[in-house]
Amino acid sequence: MNLRLEVTEKIMRTKIERDLTWSGLARLTPALSKEYVTAALLGQMPLPQSAAEAIGVELGLTDFDIKVLQEPPYRGSLPTTVPTDPLIYRFHELVSVYGTTFKALIHEEFGDGIMSAIDFRMNLERESDPAGDRVSITMSGKFLPYKRY
Amino acid sequence: MNLRLEVTEKIMRTKIERDLTWSGLARLTPALSKEYVTAALLGQMPLPQSAAEAIGVELGLTDFDIKVLQEPPYRGSLPTTVPTDPLIYRFHELVSVYGTTFKALIHEEFGDGIMSAIDFRMNLERESDPAGDRVSITMSGKFLPYKRY
Amino acid sequence: MNLRLEVTEKIMRTKIERDLTWSGLARLTPALSKEYVTAALLGQMPLPQSAAEAIGVELGLTDFDIKVLQEPPYRGSLPTTVPTDPLIYRFHELVSVYGTTFKALIHEEFGDGIMSAIDFRMNLERESDPAGDRVSITMSGKFLPYKRY
Amino acid sequence: MNLRLEVTEKIMRTKIERDLTWSGLARLTPALSKEYVTAALLGQMPLPQSAAEAIGVELGLTDFDIKVLQEPPYRGSLPTTVPTDPLIYRFHELVSVYGTTFKALIHEEFGDGIMSAIDFRMNLERESDPAGDRVSITMSGKFLPYKRY
Amino acid sequence: MNLRLEVTEKIMRTKIERDLTWSGLARLTPALSKEYVTAALLGQMPLPQSAAEAIGVELGLTDFDIKVLQEPPYRGSLPTTVPTDPLIYRFHELVSVYGTTFKALIHEEFGDGIMSAIDFRMNLERESDPAGDRVSITMSGKFLPYKRY
Amino acid sequence: MNLRLEVTEKIMRTKIERDLTWSGLARLTPALSKEYVTAALLGQMPLPQSAAEAIGVELGLTDFDIKVLQEPPYRGSLPTTVPTDPLIYRFHELVSVYGTTFKALIHEEFGDGIMSAIDFRMNLERESDPAGDRVSITMSGKFLPYKRY
Amino acid sequence: MNLRLEVTEKIMRTKIERDLTWSGLARLTPALSKEYVTAALLGQMPLPQSAAEAIGVELGLTDFDIKVLQEPPYRGSLPTTVPTDPLIYRFHELVSVYGTTFKALIHEEFGDGIMSAIDFRMNLERESDPAGDRVSITMSGKFLPYKRY
Amino acid sequence: MNLRLEVTEKIMRTKIERDLTWSGLARLTPALSKEYVTAALLGQMPLPQSAAEAIGVELGLTDFDIKVLQEPPYRGSLPTTVPTDPLIYRFHELVSVYGTTFKALIHEEFGDGIMSAIDFRMNLERESDPAGDRVSITMSGKFLPYKRY
Amino acid sequence: MNLRLEVTEKIMRTKIERDLTWSGLARLTPALSKEYVTAALLGQMPLPQSAAEAIGVELGLTDFDIKVLQEPPYRGSLPTTVPTDPLIYRFHELVSVYGTTFKALIHEEFGDGIMSAIDFRMNLERESDPAGDRVSITMSGKFLPYKRY
Amino acid sequence: MNLRLEVTEKIMRTKIERDLTWSGLARLTPALSKEYVTAALLGQMPLPQSAAEAIGVELGLTDFDIKVLQEPPYRGSLPTTVPTDPLIYRFHELVSVYGTTFKALIHEEFGDGIMSAIDFRMNLERESDPAGDRVSITMSGKFLPYKRY
Repeated sequence: MNLRLEVTEKIMRTKIERDLTWSGLARLTPALSKEYVTAALLGQMPLPQSAAEAIGVELGLTDFDIKVLQEPPYRGSLPTTVPTDPLIYRFHELVSVYGTTFKALIHEEFGDGIMSAIDFRMNLERESDPAGDRVSITMSGKFLPYKRY
Repeated sequence: MNLRLEVTEKIMRTKIERDLTWSGLARLTPALSKEYVTAALLGQMPLPQSAAEAIGVELGLTDFDIKVLQEPPYRGSLPTTVPTDPLIYRFHELVSVYGTTFKALIHEEFGDGIMSAIDFRMNLERESDPAGDRVSITMSGKFLPYKRY
Repeated sequence: MNLRLEVTEKIMRTKIERDLTWSGLARLTPALSKEYVTAALLGQMPLPQSAAEAIGVELGLTDFDIKVLQEPPYRGSLPTTVPTDPLIYRFHELVSVYGTTFKALIHEEFGDGIMSAIDFRMNLERESDPAGDRVSITMSGKFLPYKRY
Repeated sequence: MNLRLEVTEKIMRTKIERDLTWSGLARLTPALSKEYVTAALLGQMPLPQSAAEAIGVELGLTDFDIKVLQEPPYRGSLPTTVPTDPLIYRFHELVSVYGTTFKALIHEEFGDGIMSAIDFRMNLERESDPAGDRVSITMSGKFLPYKRY
Repeated sequence: MNLRLEVTEKIMRTKIERDLTWSGLARLTPALSKEYVTAALLGQMPLPQSAAEAIGVELGLTDFDIKVLQEPPYRGSLPTTVPTDPLIYRFHELVSVYGTTFKALIHEEFGDGIMSAIDFRMNLERESDPAGDRVSITMSGKFLPYKRY
Repeated sequence: MNLRLEVTEKIMRTKIERDLTWSGLARLTPALSKEYVTAALLGQMPLPQSAAEAIGVELGLTDFDIKVLQEPPYRGSLPTTVPTDPLIYRFHELVSVYGTTFKALIHEEFGDGIMSAIDFRMNLERESDPAGDRVSITMSGKFLPYKRY
Repeated sequence: MNLRLEVTEKIMRTKIERDLTWSGLARLTPALSKEYVTAALLGQMPLPQSAAEAIGVELGLTDFDIKVLQEPPYRGSLPTTVPTDPLIYRFHELVSVYGTTFKALIHEEFGDGIMSAIDFRMNLERESDPAGDRVSITMSGKFLPYKRY
Repeated sequence: MNLRLEVTEKIMRTKIERDLTWSGLARLTPALSKEYVTAALLGQMPLPQSAAEAIGVELGLTDFDIKVLQEPPYRGSLPTTVPTDPLIYRFHELVSVYGTTFKALIHEEFGDGIMSAIDFRMNLERESDPAGDRVSITMSGKFLPYKRY
Repeated sequence: MNLRLEVTEKIMRTKIERDLTWSGLARLTPALSKEYVTAALLGQMPLPQSAAEAIGVELGLTDFDIKVLQEPPYRGSLPTTVPTDPLIYRFHELVSVYGTTFKALIHEEFGDGIMSAIDFRMNLERESDPAGDRVSITMSGKFLPYKRY
Repeated sequence: MNLRLEVTEKIMRTKIERDLTWSGLARLTPALSKEYVTAALLGQMPLPQSAAEAIGVELGLTDFDIKVLQEPPYRGSLPTTVPTDPLIYRFHELVSVYGTTFKALIHEEFGDGIMSAIDFRMNLERESDPAGDRVSITMSGKFLPYKRY
């Protein structure tokens, strides 16, 4: 796990030093969304070879670092089970408050099963609102029915 | 917290006994979404008086139960910090994997602040897909900038 | 969660009183394996209506209990995160010792993704061995590739 | 514990740098399965001397490293009790959901005792399936009856 | 787990009411040691049928209770991971202080493997000593070598 | 605590490099048992000056290291409360399963009090057995009665 | 553990109903201090028979309750590891802040060993002080040297 | 917190190297007790300037180190909530066993409030006893009544 | 602790049934603030006798309940260490984010010591603001200097 | 997270070396309060560019450090969930004791919602008092009503 962490920290350091943006880095690999690329650069997703090379070259990474970016990482981006950072905690809170609601409504609509977090995509964008702009997040995960056997 | 829990369990019992649905119960109070009403009936949101009465009468609740439904509850629907139920765990996992991505992209788009989990709405629906239908969840939370002082 | 727990305890009590077996109960519903049925009777899987009725009648359950058996349960069968029961702990230990090995070999064979615990089946049987019989467990879970987007 | 960890990290680094595979490394020591060898290289099993030397020479390890590989390690491959990595978590979930089922069915078939995690072997392979290939894992552990005394 | 707990509490209550002793109860089933019988009556081991009946009749248990005593229990006798009771804590402390010593000396003598806690027997007795009597505990567990495969 | 840890790691490294054994090191200080000396070299017990010097010289430790070995250490040899290593876990399991049995039998024999883990000695040896050799551990701790005042 | 807890709660209820004091109850059994008796009535120490009877009769306990009071209890009076009650937390804090100081000074004065919490007595009293009265607690525990063997 | 920790470790190293004692170091600053000075040198209390300089010069600390010794530290001397070291654990046990007794007796004598751990002093000394010397600890903390408002 | 909890639940039930308010109840005992009285009725502070009687009579409590309200309670109002309720969590978050700031600024202004949570008063009120009203909380705690001795 | 931590530690070191104060550093950026600036320098708030530059130049930070100070940090200033430092613990205790009171009174005054910890300001100052000066903290957070939808 440390190998990937070292690459992640190197990326974060370079991003700040050069005033880069996550969106800008994602544009170097147009087949992938900014959400996927950001997660990858933060150590949570592997990058395909071409993407790893495009971004790695831009950021001055070594060949070894670029290989590491292509490995499936040991996932989990948070240092504590209950996140202390307020922005991230709000998502934890949503799961705490709405967890049983997600369960009730998905079972009612689809039957027994889950929403996949693997066959999953996500989109995060600004939603203009005269009362103050809003963060809009759309999540789409395949419904996977529990297999009976 | 026990007062509300007793009402929640009574609601769950009656719903099963009478083959009711969360969506059906939500239609008794058309000003509110099925997501809000389900969360309320699961003990996570208060109901306005008219909604509490409409649903309470339908479910055969007592006057006291109907009052309890209108109180802001002690929120938190899950029995353990890391949820053991697989459907709910997948949401926990999304926060674990994407937590730092949410943080990076929201700060990049909006600056320092958070997505509110209070001035928040959510919509959960079926997304047809030939490769298997998907669960689609749209979350919208007001961006709240950190106040400098 | 309590509704299901009450039914589970009633089932366990009756099973002991009448000297029944899990395998015997599973034979009442031949389309399902003994593994699925046992998990269901222990509160971890819903039963289809016909299976719930066949077993419920056999065990003298009420109509309400039989309905509860058909609801997707809040899953998680263990009272503590690290199980104290030695038989169950050994499985926890296998995950602790072999977790990174599972990860390394699945990624090597299939690429980035997971083995589904939802589209999953399992078979547990006796393996005769002159040095002492063995427990043989075969698990089969669909490989789900991480979606890139 | 740190002595072994340093060797594990050195192995992981070299494996990525040279584009090696776990299976390929295991073929250097044909008397052992890929599952055992991978677990050993990830710090969870000792290697016999010949295997340690064969693999150590291939990977350019020092004589001291090769000795360390032969020591029984302090086992436990995961950084947290509940694993955050989704692939590994699915196994944790299986224990959580099926733990009491394992217990019920093993006791029913064998009486009081456990499935050994020590006199244990495991095989992980691809199972072709037109609906999507599957991960198939076969575990075999000796049944150990509780001694009465 | 509650079924067994209820029987355990009934046994403890009767033992106090009638001024019985664990050793005395164990003498009702001479084929078993006082250590095994005490553990069984405290809910940690199943009793063979004849022992369950002999002790159950003596204690005035019901037929159902006597059946419950014969079931392999969900083991784990302590309410917290770190025991608060000073007598029991001292054993926890011995594992904390001597755990790595046990590991070092067993591996040195036997190679890689464990001392079984299943094929295990124990004897607890008074050791007279002019400087104050001592508690002497002898544990004997089969050495189980890790299987290579 | 770090001062002692550094010495422990140095000892472990040298022991592997030179193919030494714990028993062999203990023979350098004949007044002490192999159990006590191993625990001391693993950082859990102080060594008397002569023993620290005899072993320190053998292992090439510095004068400072030899002084550190004579200091009462901050005890506790395990990295987690529930040990992940299977050999050590089995001892944890014995305390979990037999904790209340230890308490019941010691109180029955001695009255209210504890078995000392301080005025304590231990002996670990091989017990030959045609069905497979066994680990035999004898513990002897002074009974300390609770003082009434 | 529940048997004792029921007696403790009965004692607490009666003490409030009749405006009794712990000191007053302790005076019924003059051979014991108010500290020991209060701890016993709060479920942490057994009472000798005569004391259990004297206090039990005064409080209207049953014969069974009086027997329960004479049993060594499962000790540990606090519902959480870190106590939430501010008065009790201050003692937890003293251990946190002064723990290493206790260790350093006791080892310096006595060598390797501990202060017994079993051969222990305690006295709590008011210390008059013009700047505000103080709580004075004197603890006396036998020094137990670690046995070398 | 690291700044202070580095100074603490430097002090501990020098103390061992030069065969110093805590009491001896405390005598360099006669206005302060050995208990306060030891706690300060272990990183739990700030030293007044003159004391920091007297001891710092003796120990060969830098000017920066001496300044750090005067800063109020982030207190808490133990690496885990439940201390693993047996000497320190005994104090934790006393709080666990006697916590509710402290609360009962202080409230009975003083009313609602706490014993201060801030306006607090402590004295630890040897108490001669023919049955074995004892550790005697006297604690004195100001009673602080809860303010009503 | 259960005695007080039962009274608290009875108060909460009656308050909802009769549409009472915390402020209204506090006006029955004018010498105390609404903050203190609410905390007391929620089980965190004792009430003086006259206040307990005035409120107890109003709420129809028994004489025993009224006595229980006058006892110093075992404090701690939250079911989990990290509160799940969003309103209460925000205060936990403030301590997490600003904890070191509180420490830095209080030490800078006052020297080594703490802000008392015992000699403490608090006032919570509405602060009108055209951009949306605000919650204003003023806390005042006596500074307690650490005693040097 | 490490990038910011390194800058925080550099700031703390320099502050001690040069005998600076938090208030003095805050005066370098007059548009911001001492509370906000201290939190920022302790790693909990980003600084606006001009403030980061003014303070960074004063403290001799690098250009990279000054950029890091402008990034929204991963918040959470405490090493453990329950803080061990007594000053900070008192705030944790206030949340534990008064948490349900905050909830009750805010809901009573404002209805369902929370006090924002984001649109929040705080002021900490000395309150003179003949009985001993007090710490006065005023918190003001916008009330955010739960959105119904």
